[in-house]
Amino acid sequence: MKTYPSDDGRAAFVSLERGEDLLEGLHHAAAELGFEAATLQVIGGLEKASIGYYDPEANEYLPTSTGHVEIASGLGNVSIRDGEPFIHLHLVLSGRDGAAVGGHAMEGCRAYVLEAYFRALSGPAPVREKVPGLALKVWPGS
Amino acid sequence: MKTYPSDDGRAAFVSLERGEDLLEGLHHAAAELGFEAATLQVIGGLEKASIGYYDPEANEYLPTSTGHVEIASGLGNVSIRDGEPFIHLHLVLSGRDGAAVGGHAMEGCRAYVLEAYFRALSGPAPVREKVPGLALKVWPGS
Amino acid sequence: MKTYPSDDGRAAFVSLERGEDLLEGLHHAAAELGFEAATLQVIGGLEKASIGYYDPEANEYLPTSTGHVEIASGLGNVSIRDGEPFIHLHLVLSGRDGAAVGGHAMEGCRAYVLEAYFRALSGPAPVREKVPGLALKVWPGS
Repeated sequence: MKTYPSDDGRAAFVSLERGEDLLEGLHHAAAELGFEAATLQVIGGLEKASIGYYDPEANEYLPTSTGHVEIASGLGNVSIRDGEPFIHLHLVLSGRDGAAVGGHAMEGCRAYVLEAYFRALSGPAPVREKVPGLALKVWPGS
Repeated sequence: MKTYPSDDGRAAFVSLERGEDLLEGLHHAAAELGFEAATLQVIGGLEKASIGYYDPEANEYLPTSTGHVEIASGLGNVSIRDGEPFIHLHLVLSGRDGAAVGGHAMEGCRAYVLEAYFRALSGPAPVREKVPGLALKVWPGS
Repeated sequence: MKTYPSDDGRAAFVSLERGEDLLEGLHHAAAELGFEAATLQVIGGLEKASIGYYDPEANEYLPTSTGHVEIASGLGNVSIRDGEPFIHLHLVLSGRDGAAVGGHAMEGCRAYVLEAYFRALSGPAPVREKVPGLALKVWPGS
């Protein structure tokens, strides 16, 4: 993992090496950059991936696993969960024929080529909490 | 709807409550933040959604409707249309098996979990206008 | 192509005219804005498109071509390759039935409506280089 920070330290590009774990690498980058609230964009490719659909009745993620894919899109954020900076990332992945699948980035995604961009939000970080009607910890909406 | 603005007031995270209308909630957020020109990123999930493909011959949007989906990606902007701040948002949505559909966010999208990020562009907002060869109001390209 | 820069010259919206080449237009915009390191977001529609899946064994892009599509998502960056500013852009495209394909933006994409957003990273631009284990020129990850 390598960070390419801006002069003012409030944004950065990040590259992962082939084979690095996606979410671990991005968490290390956010820690190195000192970002507790930030937006995140990602493109590149993954050697393998796992993405989830949150089943609102079962209250759990149903995973979809892939082999080598393009990261056609990656959008996410850094905020606070359980007292620690936490990355929430959604991915759109495409295969050999271009067909796209999408969902919540889960454990087990491994970088092939990874180009990320973080931009910090100066100010209080949103804090993930339990709210009525949801099993997930989210930013309160009121 | 709740905004989490940056210290300089030029960017913000936004959360919607379960059941809130997506485009209404984002327009309320942009108004509360005072943003007339801004970029927008969205992830989360929707209880139901409607997205459109613009048919260049019929000059209208053909809608695709879904039930509960992940917002695998949401990218958009705020600019001026008919004298008012207007949000243009495109979505990639994925279902239980991960399969992705995409298009222009239409009326009738309802939040399940919604995490948005706005960043203002300081300076004159682009203004949507009719241009030769298009029925849509767009930012003039020359 | 028309740029709508921010007051501080560090970000801009960009519009392409119907029929303009996507990657050429975006490269012209980055040159006009003087951006050598920047993040990029794109939405809109394309009259036709070509996107690629990088085959890690053959070390080449396998193209998928389309007719008229929505740009459901476009994420990319500007950095330095072979001494020049270079745009790396990934797209998610959707058709009449909403079905999405994704991949690396290749030559031959032509704008229908194109709304882009660039934000410069003040500081040294990442430089694309050959690294062990990859045929592509990438930002070194260590």
